Amino acid sequence: MTHTERPLDVVILAAGQGTRMKSALPKVLHPVAGRPMVAWAVKAARELGARNIVVVTGHGAEQVETALQGAGVRFARQEQQSGTGNAFLVGADALKGQGDADVLVLYGDTPLLRPETLRALIADHHAQGSAFTILTGELPDATGYGRILRDAEGNVERIVEEKAATPEEKAVREFNSGVYVMDGRAPELARRITNDNAAGEYYLTDLLELYRGEGAKVRAFKLADPDEVMGANDRTQLAQAEGIVRQRINMAHMKAGATLQAPDTTYIEDTVTLGRDVTIEPGVILRGQTRVADGVTVGAYSVVTDSVLEEGVVVKPHSVLEGAQVGTDSDVGPFARLRPGTVLGQGVHIGNFVETKNARLDAGVKAGHLAYLGDVTIGAETNVGAGTIVANFDGVNKHQSTVGAGVFIGSNSTLIAPRVIGDAAFIAAGSAVHEDVPEGALAVARGKQRTLEGWSRRYWGGMREQVQKKLPWLAGWLQKQ
Amino acid sequence: MTHTERPLDVVILAAGQGTRMKSALPKVLHPVAGRPMVAWAVKAARELGARNIVVVTGHGAEQVETALQGAGVRFARQEQQSGTGNAFLVGADALKGQGDADVLVLYGDTPLLRPETLRALIADHHAQGSAFTILTGELPDATGYGRILRDAEGNVERIVEEKAATPEEKAVREFNSGVYVMDGRAPELARRITNDNAAGEYYLTDLLELYRGEGAKVRAFKLADPDEVMGANDRTQLAQAEGIVRQRINMAHMKAGATLQAPDTTYIEDTVTLGRDVTIEPGVILRGQTRVADGVTVGAYSVVTDSVLEEGVVVKPHSVLEGAQVGTDSDVGPFARLRPGTVLGQGVHIGNFVETKNARLDAGVKAGHLAYLGDVTIGAETNVGAGTIVANFDGVNKHQSTVGAGVFIGSNSTLIAPRVIGDAAFIAAGSAVHEDVPEGALAVARGKQRTLEGWSRRYWGGMREQVQKKLPWLAGWLQKQ
Amino acid sequence: MTHTERPLDVVILAAGQGTRMKSALPKVLHPVAGRPMVAWAVKAARELGARNIVVVTGHGAEQVETALQGAGVRFARQEQQSGTGNAFLVGADALKGQGDADVLVLYGDTPLLRPETLRALIADHHAQGSAFTILTGELPDATGYGRILRDAEGNVERIVEEKAATPEEKAVREFNSGVYVMDGRAPELARRITNDNAAGEYYLTDLLELYRGEGAKVRAFKLADPDEVMGANDRTQLAQAEGIVRQRINMAHMKAGATLQAPDTTYIEDTVTLGRDVTIEPGVILRGQTRVADGVTVGAYSVVTDSVLEEGVVVKPHSVLEGAQVGTDSDVGPFARLRPGTVLGQGVHIGNFVETKNARLDAGVKAGHLAYLGDVTIGAETNVGAGTIVANFDGVNKHQSTVGAGVFIGSNSTLIAPRVIGDAAFIAAGSAVHEDVPEGALAVARGKQRTLEGWSRRYWGGMREQVQKKLPWLAGWLQKQ
Repeated sequence: MTHTERPLDVVILAAGQGTRMKSALPKVLHPVAGRPMVAWAVKAARELGARNIVVVTGHGAEQVETALQGAGVRFARQEQQSGTGNAFLVGADALKGQGDADVLVLYGDTPLLRPETLRALIADHHAQGSAFTILTGELPDATGYGRILRDAEGNVERIVEEKAATPEEKAVREFNSGVYVMDGRAPELARRITNDNAAGEYYLTDLLELYRGEGAKVRAFKLADPDEVMGANDRTQLAQAEGIVRQRINMAHMKAGATLQAPDTTYIEDTVTLGRDVTIEPGVILRGQTRVADGVTVGAYSVVTDSVLEEGVVVKPHSVLEGAQVGTDSDVGPFARLRPGTVLGQGVHIGNFVETKNARLDAGVKAGHLAYLGDVTIGAETNVGAGTIVANFDGVNKHQSTVGAGVFIGSNSTLIAPRVIGDAAFIAAGSAVHEDVPEGALAVARGKQRTLEGWSRRYWGGMREQVQKKLPWLAGWLQKQ
Repeated sequence: MTHTERPLDVVILAAGQGTRMKSALPKVLHPVAGRPMVAWAVKAARELGARNIVVVTGHGAEQVETALQGAGVRFARQEQQSGTGNAFLVGADALKGQGDADVLVLYGDTPLLRPETLRALIADHHAQGSAFTILTGELPDATGYGRILRDAEGNVERIVEEKAATPEEKAVREFNSGVYVMDGRAPELARRITNDNAAGEYYLTDLLELYRGEGAKVRAFKLADPDEVMGANDRTQLAQAEGIVRQRINMAHMKAGATLQAPDTTYIEDTVTLGRDVTIEPGVILRGQTRVADGVTVGAYSVVTDSVLEEGVVVKPHSVLEGAQVGTDSDVGPFARLRPGTVLGQGVHIGNFVETKNARLDAGVKAGHLAYLGDVTIGAETNVGAGTIVANFDGVNKHQSTVGAGVFIGSNSTLIAPRVIGDAAFIAAGSAVHEDVPEGALAVARGKQRTLEGWSRRYWGGMREQVQKKLPWLAGWLQKQ
Repeated sequence: MTHTERPLDVVILAAGQGTRMKSALPKVLHPVAGRPMVAWAVKAARELGARNIVVVTGHGAEQVETALQGAGVRFARQEQQSGTGNAFLVGADALKGQGDADVLVLYGDTPLLRPETLRALIADHHAQGSAFTILTGELPDATGYGRILRDAEGNVERIVEEKAATPEEKAVREFNSGVYVMDGRAPELARRITNDNAAGEYYLTDLLELYRGEGAKVRAFKLADPDEVMGANDRTQLAQAEGIVRQRINMAHMKAGATLQAPDTTYIEDTVTLGRDVTIEPGVILRGQTRVADGVTVGAYSVVTDSVLEEGVVVKPHSVLEGAQVGTDSDVGPFARLRPGTVLGQGVHIGNFVETKNARLDAGVKAGHLAYLGDVTIGAETNVGAGTIVANFDGVNKHQSTVGAGVFIGSNSTLIAPRVIGDAAFIAAGSAVHEDVPEGALAVARGKQRTLEGWSRRYWGGMREQVQKKLPWLAGWLQKQ
């Protein structure tokens, strides 16, 4: 929330088609670092403490409005795409402004514009007593952009479009970003914009003349980094924007005390928090509402979404976590898959090729190898043998099982849900447990072993020729029999 | 196929040793983006509609010829490596040209040269009525290259080698790439090249003088991007070339409507096709004859080779597919492994730690966890429980099994092949199915459960000391018994 | 070992706090490419053949000393952080030098300084008959550094700190790196450094004046690449240093004959050796004492630590190896996990979702799918079926098993350790083997199959409504019954 003298209303123009995206998805919904581009503009507006935020939709309006449902914005539909002047007017009408607020115009396809920059723009607008302040940038060669023509005091006289520019004007490096902050007259003045020009379009830049006609002060505020107003118009620019956002996020985490071993291949969404002395190995992806506490290591190529990793957790390489809570000092992976509803207590060990889903494992549980633990709670210190499956599905419904504390589940066992295994029970390896097991009991649910001596000789002898071709050792053995 | 007035013959020089590669593999066979370097030259020649393509081999000739078997080229062996002039002559002889064709000289170690560039070179050659046209580039500092000396009309007078150049000549930025297109006299003129020079080598550049001696027009055609003629002489240059090819491929896919979240870590071979609105997460590798339809997502770090992903397929992170067909709206992974002969119908679900090989799964089959499905067909809607193994191998031979539609295979079951399971059959969890199961039947092939109360107390009691050290909860429990 | 006229003593200053790291770990212990920064300095000192190496510790002294235990260095603690002059004096005292050695000052936070560079510095020091030689660098703008002021002969007159510099002095591009090599007087002269300055600190740079006061020759030796003396003061600089070290290592491997398909995403520690014609796919991480022989391929995203890969080994993508030996022509992965104590013979095949630990597999063993092989030796040619588990744990202790040669272990079997399986034995699929199996015998340890016809109709019929909703094919089948 910034403290300005006047409230702030924001109009976000998000009606464009974005043909160069070559997509069924409206341009402004293409995600950058996990967030649709238009949502970056909304996020910036909210961080500025905007009173009202109106998103002007057009192309793919329904999709855009659905995507922003619950974001605390109003929508205004531009029925005909007749220029930015018209788009703004549609948005301004939806503001139902009382003329008491500043109005900021943003765009749905410039995800790199920082709230800090906008805050500085607005502060300058106020400090200068400006009525209309243009956010500008400077490039060595601004070809393609409208150029800013200033008077001796630094006030803006005109914006000249590329086409209309003289050679001297073309040499001007300061360009118009299209982002403006304006005083409360903007909605009213916008009504006077006409489409009386070659293209028959309503241009928002006409507001500049209209403000000047009122004798109002028109200023420009120059960006330090012109990249911030880069629009993402095709997927190469989208990838560029993605890269810049990622780099910003990574730099901030490194400055704050996280080690990123290879920041160029580390993908952290801006919703993620990292503690101190966190180590992120190459290729890690952290998404959504993920919280990583102090001293955690996330191993190479792991993908962690909406998960909590408590202090000292070690996630080994190639693990995939989603919606999981991992307790202090637990270790997970490599090749572990924790799915939603997984809650691991302190010092739990999850090893390779283990999947958990809707599973609560208390402190000290060990499931080291090749297991599926679904819809189950497991008490402290229980050892889950390699190859254990909780058979939670009957073909139609899922069933819940409970395993006590201090249980030993032998390897390759199957717990046929719903099953209750008492504390300190012991399940023999290879058992298909179809009855509950009381506390302290042994369950054996497997066949008894029969051993037939001399059998192999007959078996392999029956395919002697193939054995000779493929299995030289066995062929030799066979010969000796 | 380009439309030129004359046919085109291509000679590809690929006899060099490439000592700096430090390899048992001939230099021109080192792959760039999955294709041996020399095959990039062959591909370019074919795209130009070449009538004859001759590859001149020398060092590692047999390996090179084997690698290009079936590529529609002829081979000519240069027995002695006595210079490019001799190499060309060997190739020209193999053309058995009638003097009616243009002859283009390419190299086996310049994989970055684009067919478009060569097409423009040839078009210019024709438009200018040139007899001998040199592909040239321009560098700020062309040290090391032969420089192009032109007359006032832009015709080429001479190529001066670094060693022989005056200071003024050394300042020339235009350099000889070694790629030439020549009229039908080239094979004849090449016979006149001598090795009467300090090195005792036959230089192909001598053709320039020979053409000029005939009064023929000699021109140069300048590349826009000098990188295209970069030779890959050691593995750092190989890696550079690989990077440039990959970037070109990625840019083209992005322009065409695919989202590459991290193009710098995305590896797509040029044989792969992508539909619209495809999303490629970081670190994905797509190889060979892979076809990705519209709206597919390929998850992070997945490696997909020679596979077809139909519309709407979601491949989750860390999946490895080879020779697989994945039907519309199916989802695969994470940690799935689809091997050759896998054919998934519509809406099939393959989850984590599941391997398929020579397996046909009809629409709606689900195999969510820890399974091996080899040499099997599975009917629609069948549920494959966690831990299911199709035991297809008897030690020597593989056997085929058939599972019907609507079957429920309980967890941790083993189907001992060859096995036939009828429609709607039900296999109890933990069964080792060694007899066929008729339609609609239940098969149970596991031991019955025995439960021994109080057993744990004795078991753990027998190693009480160790329990006390390692398992505090259990030690407490034991004490209470 | 360099051959210098005089012995070399090295003082490494490693007492600084490194607040900008925001870490509980002392700055100099932050690792770059797997090695703490201070250990890079120690390594450089050892490669120079240093007679004595003293590490001056201060902040986090105990941690630093523990980390360097066994590295062949002495420690000297600087109790109060009162400047580099004092730190050096503390270190020099610990040298107990006889004044016969050169003394080199290094830092614990400049991991990029190459031994070659230091060797050149020392050689120059000797060649010039210098008493005090400063390692300097040159930057277009050296703001922030002390500048080197030389006289007409190139001798150094003064170092002027940023604060005290005139505009002309500020224009000097040559800066002081802080690395010095000095003759045997340095320890004695250092006693004369005072803290009679604004900051009240002892500055090591004061030595320059003291040497000059002795009439001794003071020189500067300029680095070719100023990056080498880059200090890593926060984690962004740490990541930068990591990237530079990695690139150096990768370049060296490529020059020596290894193909790195994507060097930007390849992470090889400097302790790793690679043979010729090794192929490293994207995203590979090679760590520790790993040795890769000729002709090996390491697949994408594999992580290999302290392992030996013999000639011709193929590691497929997504494999994790630690402390494993892989025999000639074996293949491993994808999704394999080899843990410490794994020893694979020649031509062993380890497939997907297979884990080995303390496991010796003789030549030709195949374990293709979903297995856990722990604490076991397996004889030649044995086939380990999919889903095989060696149940090595009884809840408290691990037990060792032995499997002979030419054994066939059927799928989904469990070997309950300690178990001995004789040569050429055959274990039926689905067996939980709880008794030893003699040579050539068949063991069957599973339930017999019972088949109940018509059962499915009743089972699914009992939940007909849900079947109709979720399983259309089965609903249809049910209707027909």
